[in-house]
Amino acid sequence: MIIDNVISREKQVADALTGICGGKYVFTGADDLYGYGKDQTLDLDFPFDILVKPGTVEEVAAIMEVCNKHRVPVTPRAGGSGVTGGALPVNRGVVLSVERLNRIIGINETDGYIIVESGVITADMCRHAEERGLYFPVAPSSAGYSMVGGNVAENAGSINSCRYGTTSQYVMNLEVVLPTGEVIWTGANVSKNATGFNLTQLFVGSEGVLGIITKVVYRLVPKPTHDVSLLAGFASLEDACNAITAIRRSALQPSAVELVCENALRMTSAYLNEPLPLVEEGITTHLLVNLQDFTEEGLMHSMELAGNILEQYTAWNILTGTTAQEKEKMWKLRFSIGSALMSEGRKYRDIDISVPLSSLYRYIRRVEEIAASHGMPLACFGHALDGNLHTMLVLNEDTGEEETENAARAVNEIYSYAIDNGGVISGEHGIGLLQKEFMPMQFSGPHLQLMQQIKQLLDPNGILNPGKVL
Amino acid sequence: MIIDNVISREKQVADALTGICGGKYVFTGADDLYGYGKDQTLDLDFPFDILVKPGTVEEVAAIMEVCNKHRVPVTPRAGGSGVTGGALPVNRGVVLSVERLNRIIGINETDGYIIVESGVITADMCRHAEERGLYFPVAPSSAGYSMVGGNVAENAGSINSCRYGTTSQYVMNLEVVLPTGEVIWTGANVSKNATGFNLTQLFVGSEGVLGIITKVVYRLVPKPTHDVSLLAGFASLEDACNAITAIRRSALQPSAVELVCENALRMTSAYLNEPLPLVEEGITTHLLVNLQDFTEEGLMHSMELAGNILEQYTAWNILTGTTAQEKEKMWKLRFSIGSALMSEGRKYRDIDISVPLSSLYRYIRRVEEIAASHGMPLACFGHALDGNLHTMLVLNEDTGEEETENAARAVNEIYSYAIDNGGVISGEHGIGLLQKEFMPMQFSGPHLQLMQQIKQLLDPNGILNPGKVL
Repeated sequence: MIIDNVISREKQVADALTGICGGKYVFTGADDLYGYGKDQTLDLDFPFDILVKPGTVEEVAAIMEVCNKHRVPVTPRAGGSGVTGGALPVNRGVVLSVERLNRIIGINETDGYIIVESGVITADMCRHAEERGLYFPVAPSSAGYSMVGGNVAENAGSINSCRYGTTSQYVMNLEVVLPTGEVIWTGANVSKNATGFNLTQLFVGSEGVLGIITKVVYRLVPKPTHDVSLLAGFASLEDACNAITAIRRSALQPSAVELVCENALRMTSAYLNEPLPLVEEGITTHLLVNLQDFTEEGLMHSMELAGNILEQYTAWNILTGTTAQEKEKMWKLRFSIGSALMSEGRKYRDIDISVPLSSLYRYIRRVEEIAASHGMPLACFGHALDGNLHTMLVLNEDTGEEETENAARAVNEIYSYAIDNGGVISGEHGIGLLQKEFMPMQFSGPHLQLMQQIKQLLDPNGILNPGKVL
Repeated sequence: MIIDNVISREKQVADALTGICGGKYVFTGADDLYGYGKDQTLDLDFPFDILVKPGTVEEVAAIMEVCNKHRVPVTPRAGGSGVTGGALPVNRGVVLSVERLNRIIGINETDGYIIVESGVITADMCRHAEERGLYFPVAPSSAGYSMVGGNVAENAGSINSCRYGTTSQYVMNLEVVLPTGEVIWTGANVSKNATGFNLTQLFVGSEGVLGIITKVVYRLVPKPTHDVSLLAGFASLEDACNAITAIRRSALQPSAVELVCENALRMTSAYLNEPLPLVEEGITTHLLVNLQDFTEEGLMHSMELAGNILEQYTAWNILTGTTAQEKEKMWKLRFSIGSALMSEGRKYRDIDISVPLSSLYRYIRRVEEIAASHGMPLACFGHALDGNLHTMLVLNEDTGEEETENAARAVNEIYSYAIDNGGVISGEHGIGLLQKEFMPMQFSGPHLQLMQQIKQLLDPNGILNPGKVL
C-alpha cells in the first residue's frame, strides 16, 4: 500500500483558490479549461492547470498572494481577443479570467467619466455611455467581444485613433492588483493631475506583466452629432498614400483614414464573393475616410475639403455614405478582412508595425518585396493616417516547416527594415509572446534593462504573465 | 607651514566638470551663481556649490557620471519658472542648467512633430511651429520664459488644457539622461506605439528626480483658424459654477474656461488701477471662455450655444472679443493676477489642487472658510472646467512666524478637504519641495512605496534632485 501524502503544488493551489472564490469558480477539468489556453494568435493553444474566475478585487488580491507563495505562474485573461499571445499560459499554472468582474460601476456625467470593472465587454460600456450622451471614441474593432481590461493592458487602438488617440489617452485611473497582492489606485478621477509619478500610464500597455487591472476609469467626451463616410478607389497605391499625406497636412481631423491595399482587396472580395462598391477594374486601392462634426455646416466644409484632396490625388471614384445602410456597405470589405484571413484553410502572422507617415508608402512597397522574395502571400490594410498598417503574412492553417521558416525570415526582415526607418514593432497589438524576440532589435541595452528592472521590482518572483514582453 | 593636500570634493567635481564642459561653462563664484538658487517659489533661495551649463547630451551624461562617482547632488534647472520648488538646490551640490541646450532641431510637417532640446523657451518653439502652420496647443502661461524641459518635467498645464489636455498628451518621445549617466530615448517618433512599457510617461511629470530631459519630441496639431473670447460677469460664484457645469455637459469644447473669483478680481483690479471691462458693481465673478473652430459657421454655432448657456445661468453681462486688441483687454485682468499677488509687499503660497468639476463650487467655498478662519487673504482663479483652480494664500513678503504657522494650518486643512473629496494636491504645478509632506496624505502606503522603489531603481545613490517629490 502506497500512502499518498505528497499533495501536488497544483492541488494545494487549487484548494487555496477554492477557499478564496468558492468551488464554483475554480476549474481543473479539461472540459472547463477548454478555450482558455488560446487567444486569437495563430493557432497557438497552451495547456495549463487551473482556471479561476474571481468576482471581486479582494479575491484577485488573495489569489495573487497564494500564487506568489507557491511560485505558480498566473496568466491574466480578459476577452481573449489578442493577436500577439498576451493571454497565453505559456508556463502552465493558473489562468485568471476577469470575466466575472463585469460590472459597470457608474458614470459621472458632470465630470465626464465612467468606472467599469475590467471584465466588461467594451461595446457594452460604449452603449452605456452613449445612452447617457457621452462617447468613448477609441473602442477597438474587437469591441463586441474584447474587454476593457484587455484594451487597457494592450493600449488598444481604434480606427478612430487618428483623431482621438489610443486607449491610453482615456484612462484617468486604474485599480490594479500588483503581483504581490497589494491593491492600488494608480491615479485619481480628475481631469488634471501632476501629483507624483504617472503610474497609470506605466500599467496601460504593460500587457498584464506588471499587475492585474481590476477597474478602469475612462474619460468620456461629447459625441459629434454629424458624420459621413467617404470611400475612394485609387488606381495606384502611391496616389492613395499621397492623398493620405495631404489629408494629414490639411486642417481636416478625420476620425478614420483606413487603407486597403490590392492584396487585401482581392483576397477579401473573393472571400465575400458578392458585388461590392468600387471593386472594379482599374481600382487597386481603397481609402476609407470618416468625418465627424457637431454641425451640418462644419461637416459639409470638411467633406468639401476631403473631396478636393481625394480628387486632386486622382481618386478614380468617390462614394459618400450618410445613412447607416450606406456606411455598412462601404465598410463591409474593410471589416471582413480579418475573417477572410482566417477562411479557407488560412491563418495569419500578425504584423502591426507603426511607422512615421512620411515613410508609409516606402514601407508598404518594401514589405511587398520581402514577402514576395519569400513566396509569402500578404494582406496590407489598416490605420494609414497613423502610419499603423497591418501587413499580415498569410499562412496555411497547417503550416509546414518550410513555410514557418520562410515566415520567420520575412518577419525578421520586415521588422528590421521598419526599425531602421523609425518605426516600432507594435502600434496597437502589443508585444506579447510573438514579438518579444524582437525587443532587443527595437530597444537599446540600457532601455531594455530598465524595463526588465521595473518588471523585477513589481514582480520579484516572476509569476505574473511570464514569458511575455521581455 | 600647512600643506593643503586635501582637495575638497567640490573642487574635484568642479575640475572634472571643467574637463567636460570647458571652464567657460562651469561656475563657482557667488556672482555667477546668483539667481540659480531660486525659482518662483515664495522667496526661497538656497546656496549651492557649482553651476554647470552643458551644451550637449554627452556632456550631461558625463556630468552625471562624475557626480554619481562623488555622490554630489545634482539639481536640474530649465526656465526656473516653477512655483513648487522643483528647481531649488536644497542639498547644495551642482545646479545643472539646460539653458544652452536651446536648439530647435527640426520640425516634420508630414509626421506632425517637432524635436527640440530641453532648454528651448516654450514660446520660441510655439512660434517656430506656427510659422510652419502647426500648433502646440498647451503652452503654459509662463511660455515666454519657461523652457520645454521644465514643462515636461512638471507636466505643465495650459489655459487650453480643457480642450487639449496637458503637456503629457503631446510628448511622443524623450531623450533622457538617467541619474547614472546612461542615455535613452524613451519612445519613438510615431503616432501609435504599443511596444514595451511606457517609459515616456514615467518621465513626464517626474519633476527631474528620475532623469534629466535633454530632448523632447512634441506632437503638433492643426491650428483652428477662427477664435473668439467671451467675458461674462456674474453676480454670484454659484451661478458662474453652474454655467461651467452646463458648458461641460454641452457639446461645446471650449479651448479655455477661466474663472476669476471675487477675491482675485478685487485684488487685481486694485493693483491695475485702471478701467477694466465688467469690473463694476453687481459683478463678483468673471468667467472667460475661449472658443476655436476651423470655420466661421462652426464658431458662430459655438458662440450661440455658449451665449445661451451663460445667459441661462444669469450672466450679468457678456462681452465678445474677436480682434487681438479686444481680447487683450478682456484677458488683462486674468493675466495680471500673478503680478498682483507679488506686488505691494505680497507673496503667495501656491495651491494648485485639482478636484472633480462636480465638487468645484463646494471646494471654493470651503477654501474661503478655511482661509477666513485663519485670517489669511486668498486669491482664487484658474482653469475651472478642469476643476483645477489656483487658490493662493496671500502672504506678506516678510512673513512672520504667526503668519507662517497660520498658512501651514490652512494648507493642511485645504489639502485634507480636497483629498477627502476626490481631489489631488497638484493639477499642473507638481509636488516639488513644497507639497512633498502631503504625499502620504494623497497616496496609500503601497502606492508611495512603489514610487520610492522606482526612484531608488533609477537613482540608487539618490543624487538627482534630492529632497523633491518623495
